[in-house]
Amino acid sequence: MTLAELQTVPGVAAQPPAETAGFVFNHTMLRVKDATASLDFYTRVLGYQLIDKRDFAEARFSLYFLALLPAGTPVPESDAERRLWMAGMPGVLELTHNHGTEAQDGPVYHDGNSDPRGFGHICVSVPDIQSACKRFDDLQVPYQKRLEDGRMKHLAFIKDPDGYWVEIISNG
Amino acid sequence: MTLAELQTVPGVAAQPPAETAGFVFNHTMLRVKDATASLDFYTRVLGYQLIDKRDFAEARFSLYFLALLPAGTPVPESDAERRLWMAGMPGVLELTHNHGTEAQDGPVYHDGNSDPRGFGHICVSVPDIQSACKRFDDLQVPYQKRLEDGRMKHLAFIKDPDGYWVEIISNG
Repeated sequence: MTLAELQTVPGVAAQPPAETAGFVFNHTMLRVKDATASLDFYTRVLGYQLIDKRDFAEARFSLYFLALLPAGTPVPESDAERRLWMAGMPGVLELTHNHGTEAQDGPVYHDGNSDPRGFGHICVSVPDIQSACKRFDDLQVPYQKRLEDGRMKHLAFIKDPDGYWVEIISNG
Repeated sequence: MTLAELQTVPGVAAQPPAETAGFVFNHTMLRVKDATASLDFYTRVLGYQLIDKRDFAEARFSLYFLALLPAGTPVPESDAERRLWMAGMPGVLELTHNHGTEAQDGPVYHDGNSDPRGFGHICVSVPDIQSACKRFDDLQVPYQKRLEDGRMKHLAFIKDPDGYWVEIISNG
């Protein structure tokens, strides 16, 4: 579909309103059962960096903010500067951990892909999808759909510790 | 929490693995009941641009890819170039429309914030949160939490046509 055709799809505004200048799609929030398991997955397997953590002791939850930063991206040292910097950036992942869920038996959260459905997945794009998936195999990451499964041979879905689907596509 | 402290949170990898260089947190996918209503909301109210649409007539669904682009960002004309460009970019929103759901009565999808919980929200950051919320009022956008409600006076939650929560924070 050409750009001109995309602009005539029903519902699409003729152009972005001037009042939305500077709006940024900043983050997506997922609840996680076990913060340690999720941080391990997102940092060790996928390469995210933890850029902020906020604890709400009284309400018994903590928020973890992660981002996949290009190598060498300077991360501001001070809390205040870092929070301003991260608020202006797209592609942040917020994980909410309600204290104590990690001690529950079995899954705590719903991945959105069986009834009731809604949220579907997040997606990480990679420069070399064959080597990325080979590495996920080596790391024994669970799959929802392997690269070679089904008709779509150019994408895979892995699963995070809560069972949320993470689509893997190529950006190369 | 200082940067050094963030790196010692349990589960956090010492540093991003070299094999994850070039990984990009590309998109988040949400299912929507009525594509026209959702495109109107995301483009007219929030300023997203529709950058791709893919139709799967046989399987009866369509995918809509949207992004909040800084003013003047050139969008590649050709399909192939545009798809490569968007795969390398963080902050894309993918909306999945299963054909026919728009004719069903009542809500079709689950926002993730009542049982069974999981996904929580997406977040758009804005340069001037007071004027952004004033504009949402003028546009009669429904709120989950107004700026002035509760203890957190620096953030709001609006709702998209499916009831998904969109957090509004300041990036200024």
